[in-house]
Amino acid sequence: MANLDENLLKKIVAHAKEYGFVFPSSEIYDGLGAAYDYGQNGVELKNNIKSYWWKAMVQMNENIVGLDASIFMHPTTWKASGHVDAFNDPMIDNKDSKKRYRADVLIEEHIAKIEAKIDKEVTKAAKRFGDDFDKEQFVSTNPRVVKYNEQIDEINAKLKAGMESGELNQLKDLIEELGIADPISGSKNWTDVRQFNLMFATELGSLAEGANKIYLRPETAQGIFVNFLNVQKTGRMKIPFGIAQIGKAFRNEIIARQFIFRMREFEQMEMQFFVKPGEEMGWYENWKEKRIQWHKSLGLGEDYYRFHDHLNLAHYANAACDIEFNFPMGFKELEGIHSRTDFDLKAHEEHSGKKLQFFDPQENKSYVPYVIETSIGLDRMFLALLSAAYTEETLEDGSERVVLKIPAPLAPSKVAVLPLLKKDGLPEKAREIIDELKYDFTCQYDEKDAIGRRYRRQDAVGTPYCITVDHQTLEDNTVTLRDRDTAKQERIAIAELKARVEDLVSLTSLLKKIK
Amino acid sequence: MANLDENLLKKIVAHAKEYGFVFPSSEIYDGLGAAYDYGQNGVELKNNIKSYWWKAMVQMNENIVGLDASIFMHPTTWKASGHVDAFNDPMIDNKDSKKRYRADVLIEEHIAKIEAKIDKEVTKAAKRFGDDFDKEQFVSTNPRVVKYNEQIDEINAKLKAGMESGELNQLKDLIEELGIADPISGSKNWTDVRQFNLMFATELGSLAEGANKIYLRPETAQGIFVNFLNVQKTGRMKIPFGIAQIGKAFRNEIIARQFIFRMREFEQMEMQFFVKPGEEMGWYENWKEKRIQWHKSLGLGEDYYRFHDHLNLAHYANAACDIEFNFPMGFKELEGIHSRTDFDLKAHEEHSGKKLQFFDPQENKSYVPYVIETSIGLDRMFLALLSAAYTEETLEDGSERVVLKIPAPLAPSKVAVLPLLKKDGLPEKAREIIDELKYDFTCQYDEKDAIGRRYRRQDAVGTPYCITVDHQTLEDNTVTLRDRDTAKQERIAIAELKARVEDLVSLTSLLKKIK
Repeated sequence: MANLDENLLKKIVAHAKEYGFVFPSSEIYDGLGAAYDYGQNGVELKNNIKSYWWKAMVQMNENIVGLDASIFMHPTTWKASGHVDAFNDPMIDNKDSKKRYRADVLIEEHIAKIEAKIDKEVTKAAKRFGDDFDKEQFVSTNPRVVKYNEQIDEINAKLKAGMESGELNQLKDLIEELGIADPISGSKNWTDVRQFNLMFATELGSLAEGANKIYLRPETAQGIFVNFLNVQKTGRMKIPFGIAQIGKAFRNEIIARQFIFRMREFEQMEMQFFVKPGEEMGWYENWKEKRIQWHKSLGLGEDYYRFHDHLNLAHYANAACDIEFNFPMGFKELEGIHSRTDFDLKAHEEHSGKKLQFFDPQENKSYVPYVIETSIGLDRMFLALLSAAYTEETLEDGSERVVLKIPAPLAPSKVAVLPLLKKDGLPEKAREIIDELKYDFTCQYDEKDAIGRRYRRQDAVGTPYCITVDHQTLEDNTVTLRDRDTAKQERIAIAELKARVEDLVSLTSLLKKIK
Repeated sequence: MANLDENLLKKIVAHAKEYGFVFPSSEIYDGLGAAYDYGQNGVELKNNIKSYWWKAMVQMNENIVGLDASIFMHPTTWKASGHVDAFNDPMIDNKDSKKRYRADVLIEEHIAKIEAKIDKEVTKAAKRFGDDFDKEQFVSTNPRVVKYNEQIDEINAKLKAGMESGELNQLKDLIEELGIADPISGSKNWTDVRQFNLMFATELGSLAEGANKIYLRPETAQGIFVNFLNVQKTGRMKIPFGIAQIGKAFRNEIIARQFIFRMREFEQMEMQFFVKPGEEMGWYENWKEKRIQWHKSLGLGEDYYRFHDHLNLAHYANAACDIEFNFPMGFKELEGIHSRTDFDLKAHEEHSGKKLQFFDPQENKSYVPYVIETSIGLDRMFLALLSAAYTEETLEDGSERVVLKIPAPLAPSKVAVLPLLKKDGLPEKAREIIDELKYDFTCQYDEKDAIGRRYRRQDAVGTPYCITVDHQTLEDNTVTLRDRDTAKQERIAIAELKARVEDLVSLTSLLKKIK
């Protein structure tokens, strides 16, 4: 179940750094805003997540193939996709402090202040009335609270109207009407609101006049759409079929925060599934089911997940939902499943002048396929795993530990081989075992400190199995195999180790849970 | 052995596109200069190369761990590394055509023209003298050729002096002295020569004043250096130890060409090995040997490789060499092995004010480690494999084929399962076999066309084994297993397939060749 500890995110950030999962980027230069580096254990976990997704999507499905498109794409791609014109945040500058803010966020923060006032009234009243306090009744009848709520509704309505109409001066008017001041300088001297595009731009080549302005892709999806025909034809694919891709994308978020949840450089695992127009809703439901199965196969607990259906659909979608995960900051989007219609392929047809259609031999005609997209944030998936895995507990023997209960097939190292003592030939024997296992599994060797401390270290990085080499090993070629989660040990012959560990850590057992 | 067919590169580019290995990026928009996308077979091959490198470097070595640093880094990183000041190409603009050129390339092209004149004289003379022609004697005595060669030597000397002194006007003087004209307009109206930085710049955040100018990393190495202490401390690493990383890097090359050999967006597989000062030469030799073994383990043929020692060392190196591969365009750099001294860590100490040292308990003192780097271009490795694998041949039965003899463990698909006929329950049986094998291997299914054509298709994408399901299969649960390279078939029980294929395609056999 979800851990409701309010400090959980802070603990995870600290643990991730201390144990080599995630470091702040360029830390020796005091970091770079909202960029992170994956350390020696983080990179293994990240690679294992990728591998599990790739196997589940590409290797298990006869009609899904992979792709790895470049980050640089022809700039017209982003004209066609709508990102050049519509991938914006409304920004406002304070003329005195010269600081820039998101206009909608300034307004939302103002709303949050009113909400705080309501909370204060409620707390005060609860104290006064004690056990007799009826919060619902109080909120609906107390004149001050009623007025606050009316204010909030009014502001929200104006904010929504301004955002949806694109009349950005409405947002400026609202900011001035509410008397919102620069949180740093206190000044109310604002510029007009302007749109700020979230794509990172750079220049390709070195033409003396007008180098090519290009963008870092803000999503990986378009790399799939522009290659639709290339893959369909060279791969002899028939509708329905899918193209899967893992890769980096970049968004110049004004407010990037919550650790690796929202970064300016991030990685996506996306699959676009091309279907016959009219059949998209069945496939949409099918992929909702398949994807939630993938998540649940990890055994973190079903309560961590919920679907959130989009009521306001994006202009390109005719159905959309998120799989939300119960992160330390609450339920947030982990994966999106969108029925994107034929919007993207048609837009690329228009802008490129090329036909992007499939000839259906049964129907004996060509059509632009409809598309179901499944898109999961790799970094978010990483954070989801860390959050669910992070456990503080007291063992039966009374010792306390922090253990990362990462699903064994995804754990950074699969086994640690530990000689009980640093002498009597035990280290040599331990290394012999590693030399047998290392071709199939990522192994750790550790001979320093008492065995208990070494178990704690492996617990903290999520190593699912510890193999301890002791004096009995030298006599009968058996070792102890310790299970991370139960801390139980059993004696097992070295000759059986490889097959046994393979059974315990292979991805196959997870893959078989997905129907 | 190296294929000396002059058209080989063209054939490989065409084959790579036709069979879903490499597509020109954004092709529907007529492409983007020197960017390519990896198609459904390309991405699998690329992933397999990564996996083999990662296993060989990280999983096999107790003292090497991984890292995945972000592409965005603090801009001071590139000041410290020298890239802001010294990662430049000398550019010259033509005032009439407004076109920009690399000054040194204009001069080199002029030299190439003189060399062409020499070739013409030689060809003419060879025709005249027939069998009696002694090329060496002719070149050293013919007055015209001798003069040409003197001209070339003189130009080369001036070019070298201009490049090394940094006095860029010497290059302009040389261009004017040689009367070099704009190859497009014929104009000799040149600007001064200026340095053009090869890093891609973009802006992070949206400050009203002075957004942060940042760069797309031009190499992955610095991500390792700035994380040196983070990894060393959290991973409890002791000198000597290494940090390995796979990731994208970006260079705004003026002349990007030769397919995926030189791209503006490319991927590196790098390992930085930290050693005690004074011990670097032994480790340098050690890594030269280890890395050539890795290459040779693939069995492409030893003649494909040679070492090229650098005579002119970069400012940070005290020894350096390339492993060159015999590409279709000749021997070119595939991997670099550099002894980088303590240049990078010391530079980051200076620019960050942080100590980047290792405390050596045996010596009881701290020092800045020396570094041996092994750095291989993933895209080049991909091209090397395609070039060596591409084979046109006539089989014993007289049929001709194009086959990609990719080492089986790296092949995009490991097996294809083919029902001999599309009826009698053979397709169902074939899919049963796939359902057994797909957890462990990437499988293909193909039921279209005659079996011979299907073999050709699998040959063309490098699938090492074809499993054919025929009527006998329904009787005795055996299939034929066909070897891609020999085209030989044998009958094998379905129950033995998994273990047999595992033996044939596992990376373990390659890994065991590296001592």
